[in-house]
Parts: sequence; structure tokens; C-alpha cells
Amino acid sequence: VRTLKLTIAYDGTRYVGWQRQAQGTSVQALIEGAIAIVEGRRAHVTGSGRTDAGVHAFGQVASVEIGHPIAIADLQRALNARLPSDVRIVALAEAPRGFNARFAARSKTYRYRIFPGETANPFERDFSWHVPDVLDAESMRAALGVMVGTHDFAAFQAAGSRVRTTVRTITAATLSRRGARLIGPGNDLVEIEVTGDGFLRHMVRNIVGTVVDVGQRRRSVDSVTAVLAGRDRKRAGPTAPAHGLFLVRVDYDDAAAP
Amino acid sequence: VRTLKLTIAYDGTRYVGWQRQAQGTSVQALIEGAIAIVEGRRAHVTGSGRTDAGVHAFGQVASVEIGHPIAIADLQRALNARLPSDVRIVALAEAPRGFNARFAARSKTYRYRIFPGETANPFERDFSWHVPDVLDAESMRAALGVMVGTHDFAAFQAAGSRVRTTVRTITAATLSRRGARLIGPGNDLVEIEVTGDGFLRHMVRNIVGTVVDVGQRRRSVDSVTAVLAGRDRKRAGPTAPAHGLFLVRVDYDDAAAP
Repeated sequence: VRTLKLTIAYDGTRYVGWQRQAQGTSVQALIEGAIAIVEGRRAHVTGSGRTDAGVHAFGQVASVEIGHPIAIADLQRALNARLPSDVRIVALAEAPRGFNARFAARSKTYRYRIFPGETANPFERDFSWHVPDVLDAESMRAALGVMVGTHDFAAFQAAGSRVRTTVRTITAATLSRRGARLIGPGNDLVEIEVTGDGFLRHMVRNIVGTVVDVGQRRRSVDSVTAVLAGRDRKRAGPTAPAHGLFLVRVDYDDAAAP
Repeated sequence: VRTLKLTIAYDGTRYVGWQRQAQGTSVQALIEGAIAIVEGRRAHVTGSGRTDAGVHAFGQVASVEIGHPIAIADLQRALNARLPSDVRIVALAEAPRGFNARFAARSKTYRYRIFPGETANPFERDFSWHVPDVLDAESMRAALGVMVGTHDFAAFQAAGSRVRTTVRTITAATLSRRGARLIGPGNDLVEIEVTGDGFLRHMVRNIVGTVVDVGQRRRSVDSVTAVLAGRDRKRAGPTAPAHGLFLVRVDYDDAAAP
């Protein structure tokens, strides 16, 4: 038996999210199904964490134990041949015995893509949030700076969640502009990237919704500081839509998963 | 009555192409339908030319005559509100009376996007041709150079086409690398851009298929010169798939459409 580390990219548009649900197709179930064909039995695939319906991934990480002696490169090709084209195993490696992609994760990086401007970009409609406004990037950067550090993020947690603690550490929260897949100047995307040791349910999307409020001058940077301190979900901004969010990377200690 | 110039971006994945067909939905029919709601009658929309099923556009241009006195900016918003999100009017302007987007077109620019490398990119699957090989960009550039100038492009015309003349002028044919919407290094797209005074049916896709043969070292640059001179479709390479092709721009004399 070998423990494998899978790095997975997926376009989440058609899926109910990473995790199996009673209804609809999950990315986890697709990968378990592809492995079952090779392995001849059902194997449980452990993701680093859930992603919501419609959320995408460049580098979701998962672990699985397999018994079949197939070479790693052949297994990657075999799995990709069986998966739909919107889900790809982009890297596959042997990991130390017992590696668990969820419990060993040290930090995660999410990217949120926003397309500002009056006319939407048809090539970005499933991969960014169209905000038909000019956004004040400098104020947004300042609001993102409020999030960096160890804080109680209860204000940015989905209503009704139950977790042991709502304290998390954000190590970086940056904003950059990037050319969209379109039509020359004036069509830059605003990309927000957030790295942390863990995220509450909807936390990135709620932070982004609040930061976009600031970018639209509906809310001051000081008010964001007050929202964070107040730990009240009702005072934060709206939840940004799922289809702008990408899980970029999951990091592990070198010893856990080289 | 005013003559309008529409600049249109569309994701062609769901459509039978620009032009109305007996079966399926065309972009032309969608735009005519949106205008009919505003105008109260069916108006004929003239595109600069056809695009095949699955081909995309950043800047298709069309002309139409409308009688309704609505302000241009309001009309653009009204049309976009009625169109599906994969079709957008990105610019709308009044043109000289009688402007015809097809007959006044002076040159067109197409871009063809290729994603090389073993593992496909799920975010590029509808917007590039996945070629699971290393491509020799310098040889491809040399093969593209063969196309520049005024030539009889009969070898690159879809079989069975009938046109008055197969002579066309290509003014530029370039290759560049561009970062894909993915996962760091080694995932650059190869983009081929071709500008000319007009294109035969499948001409860009047949040129790209032949140039990719060169990039894969299945064919020499000299053989491309021979294929062009031989004017025989059967000696050229395969037709590259539609979903990698984008109509980038249509250019007009300033007097025809400022």
C-alpha cells in the first residue's frame, strides 16, 4: 500500500463542490470513481478541505492509499483519461505513509477574481465576479491589511456555522491587477489573494464582499476594523459569489509531503 | 433611421456560429432578437463575416439600421440586458449612413490559442487547442513567415468551397507565448495571430494545423512553402479545432466607420 498526494485543478462550474453531497456531482466522487477503476475497489480520497459549489481550484490537494503497483506517471495518465476535462490531476507523487491532506495542511492560499467595469467579459463570466463599478484599489488594499494577523474572524463566518474556535491567522492578503482574457486596455481584473492557516466557512468570500464595499466607497476602512473587532456577521458586507473564488495552493511541511 | 456599428464579444461554445442556420442558435439571431425587442420590428444585422460553430470573438463587427430614437449608451445597456451572458455588445457607435460591416471591412485579425504540454488545463479547455507535445516555436515562426504576402491560398481552403478567387493577402502572422490561466511555469500558451485582407473558409485553422505539424517536427518549413505553392488541400496539415480560434478585430477605413 502506498500513500499518494494528488494535486488537482478543477473548473467548479458544474459541480456541487469538492465534497460528496446527497445530490449532484462532487469532485471528490469523480476522483474516487476514477481510482476505483484502476484499483478495483473503492478508496476514500481525503481533500485538504471543502470547496463550495461553483468554487474552482488550481491546486486542491488530496491524499489516498492505493494497493495497485502501477507506476505513478501511468496512474496520473490513467486517472486523467477517466476524468471529465474540467477536472485534471496536475501532479501526483508518493507521500510518506499515512500522509493526510486535511490534517497535515499548514496553510492555504485562495485567489478571488473581480472583473470591474460596466460591460461584462463573456470569457470571464464563470471565473470572476462582475462588479459594474470603478473600484478604489488603494482603499481595498488598506482594508485587506486589516485582516492580516491572528484575529477572531467570527464576523466573516457563514451564519449558522459551528466550529471550536473562530480564531485564524492570515499571513498575507494582497491585491493585484491582471489583464483579462479580452479586449485591450480598461479591462484589467482585480485579483485578491489571501493566505492563512485555515479558513472558516465563506470566510474568503465574506472578506471579499466587505473589501469590495470599501472599493465602491460604500464603507470606510475604519468600519472594517470595527466589523472585525465586533465579531458580528450582520455588520460585514455581502458574501461574494462562489464563481470568482479559486483554491490556489495548499502548503505542507516538507516532512509531511515533499 | 441611423446606421449603427456594433462591436461584439462572444464565447462561441454554445453556438452554431455567427450566421443563422436551420438548426441551433446563432449569435446573429440572438442580436437580431434583442434589437427586435427595442425596435419593435425585425432588423437585419450584417456581420463582417461568418465565424464557424465553436469559434469565439473579442471584436466581431456588425452593422444595422435602426429607427428608434433611443440614445446609444442606453441601447447598448438594453441589448446587453437582453442577451445571454456569453454574448456582449462591447462597443456601440453611430456609423455613416449605409455603413456595411461586411463590404467595408479592410482587414481582419484572428488569434489561435494552443495549450502545449501533457496535462490539459481545465480552464482553457473551451478556449485553446490542447497539443500534448513540446512545440518548436522558432520553426513555427518560420512557417508562419511563409504565409505573409499575397498568395493563392487554395491549399488552405476547406475542401469543397467555391469562391471567385483564392488569392488573399496576409500582412502579419506572429507567434507569442502568454501565461495561461493556471498554475505557474511550464503552462504558457502559444498564441498565433494572423492579419489579412480576407480569409477563405477554414483558412486560419488549416494554416494553424500545418504550422503545428512543423512545431511537432512532423513537417519541415520547406514543405510548407511547397504546400502553399502546390495549392492542393490534401498536402496541407489538419484543420485545427474551432474552439482555439478568436476573431480579434475587424478594421475599416476611418471614413467608413470612425
